[in-house]
Amino acid sequence: MSAETKKTYFERIALIGVGLIGSSLARVVRRDGLAGHIAVCARSHATLDKARELGLADSTTTDPRQVVEGADLVVLCTPLGVYGQIAEAMAPGLKPGCIVTDVGSAKQTVIVDVNPHLPEGVHLVPGHPVAGTEHSGPEAGFAELFEGRFCILTPAPGTNETAVAKITALWELAGMNVEIMNAHHHDSVLAITSHLPHLIAYTIVGTATDLEDHLMLEVIKYSAGGFRDFTRIAASDPVMWRDVFLSNRESVLEMLGRFSEDLTALQRAIRWGEGDKLQELFTRTREIRRGVIEAKQA
Amino acid sequence: MSAETKKTYFERIALIGVGLIGSSLARVVRRDGLAGHIAVCARSHATLDKARELGLADSTTTDPRQVVEGADLVVLCTPLGVYGQIAEAMAPGLKPGCIVTDVGSAKQTVIVDVNPHLPEGVHLVPGHPVAGTEHSGPEAGFAELFEGRFCILTPAPGTNETAVAKITALWELAGMNVEIMNAHHHDSVLAITSHLPHLIAYTIVGTATDLEDHLMLEVIKYSAGGFRDFTRIAASDPVMWRDVFLSNRESVLEMLGRFSEDLTALQRAIRWGEGDKLQELFTRTREIRRGVIEAKQA
Repeated sequence: MSAETKKTYFERIALIGVGLIGSSLARVVRRDGLAGHIAVCARSHATLDKARELGLADSTTTDPRQVVEGADLVVLCTPLGVYGQIAEAMAPGLKPGCIVTDVGSAKQTVIVDVNPHLPEGVHLVPGHPVAGTEHSGPEAGFAELFEGRFCILTPAPGTNETAVAKITALWELAGMNVEIMNAHHHDSVLAITSHLPHLIAYTIVGTATDLEDHLMLEVIKYSAGGFRDFTRIAASDPVMWRDVFLSNRESVLEMLGRFSEDLTALQRAIRWGEGDKLQELFTRTREIRRGVIEAKQA
Repeated sequence: MSAETKKTYFERIALIGVGLIGSSLARVVRRDGLAGHIAVCARSHATLDKARELGLADSTTTDPRQVVEGADLVVLCTPLGVYGQIAEAMAPGLKPGCIVTDVGSAKQTVIVDVNPHLPEGVHLVPGHPVAGTEHSGPEAGFAELFEGRFCILTPAPGTNETAVAKITALWELAGMNVEIMNAHHHDSVLAITSHLPHLIAYTIVGTATDLEDHLMLEVIKYSAGGFRDFTRIAASDPVMWRDVFLSNRESVLEMLGRFSEDLTALQRAIRWGEGDKLQELFTRTREIRRGVIEAKQA
């Protein structure tokens, strides 16, 4: 065992939820030998069977309390909407010194929904690995999903430093660049970089779905003109995303308000033939792409 | 020379504009030996020099009238906004029997801006190869750009059939599936599959650009959450897209109206916590992705 692995080693990891992110993390843990035992909890037996088949679970259960028993690390990998009830259910099973983390796309909600249920001596280190694909379920995961991406941790001030260091080391072994920030700030940044793009993609694909049938077929046929990129984003997990929008409501509505104003201004420019305004904006946006490429996030 | 090549052969092709699409077409023509001579016209000498360097031009000029002289095929590959003035300038140079086509993303505008200038005996076959990347200029082109994509031709009723057949064969040799439709219908379909997606991508990237500086850096850093796909689309050629929106104004405004209504409905659902509505839409949009994948346009 390398020094790095040793520092990150957990006797028993409890994964609650084993979809794209959870199963990808389990693959990293297996690959690097980061746990003595992986206990997996999910609602459906089919999912649990799949996790076993894939070699990702040493034990399985549908009971959140049972899965966390004896665990020194608990990772919530479910949609955000069930965090509260899972936290309440698992709380009596948590052992002192256990670290609880998660992978959810909104972070203030973790403080509100999970923290109040945790017993004294359990360390909450909310996390968000900013990585994903449009696919869902345990089969969709792969260990390389996280490589070169960012992981944001939002521990409350005063959180046990060793706990934060262990979660940091875990995601670093997965290949991520770990950043620590305030949960509120996280939610603002992600509202524009992730939540609003998904909302807009879902909307435009929905708008297309409502077109007359014969137009619809052509929309698919000619989707290479730009639309297909939106269909990929709008194929993301419906329940997960429903919960993201409900959990990060304030920040999403704020960014959506700005976006709608800007869209209305462009609409007006098109209606009145104001080509200069259009060209000026389209030139500015081109710059940003360079930034994304330079930051190696393209 | 194969039978197929022979059918598609032109003595002299005049390319007016040699950006991503024009230079990619020139590469196809060179690769398959489809022309005795490629004459290229552009506004800037730098672009013309580049086209020569790349081996894409046998002769070059900045004069639209000169470039079309003796040509049996003229391909307009400029932004839509200059079609009218180019058509007027080149008209006296066109020889009888010449075919004039284009590659623009809006098609009613070709009938309005180009057709009135063409002398008797010249055949107009408007075309739109639905393919592209976010890169611009003669260096950005490549012969494989068109492979497996659709090309839409919108000849007016009564257009010379041999002319339509030759343009069809040309794009088929480039690897495209050619479809013929009415220009108005084309403009409606492309408004939703291409123009609206670009408008929205430009808008959201613009909204992000206007954020406070420190947020802006983070937007780039965490762009892997969805935003980066929009930055790619919003890096497309500013002048080309300005002209698309101005040229296809009616259809774009119509689709934008539908989109805005749908977005407002979603905004309301988020504000009022109507999770069922969100989930229902997000489930429907997932279906469309399957259609895109099945149509091999993913």
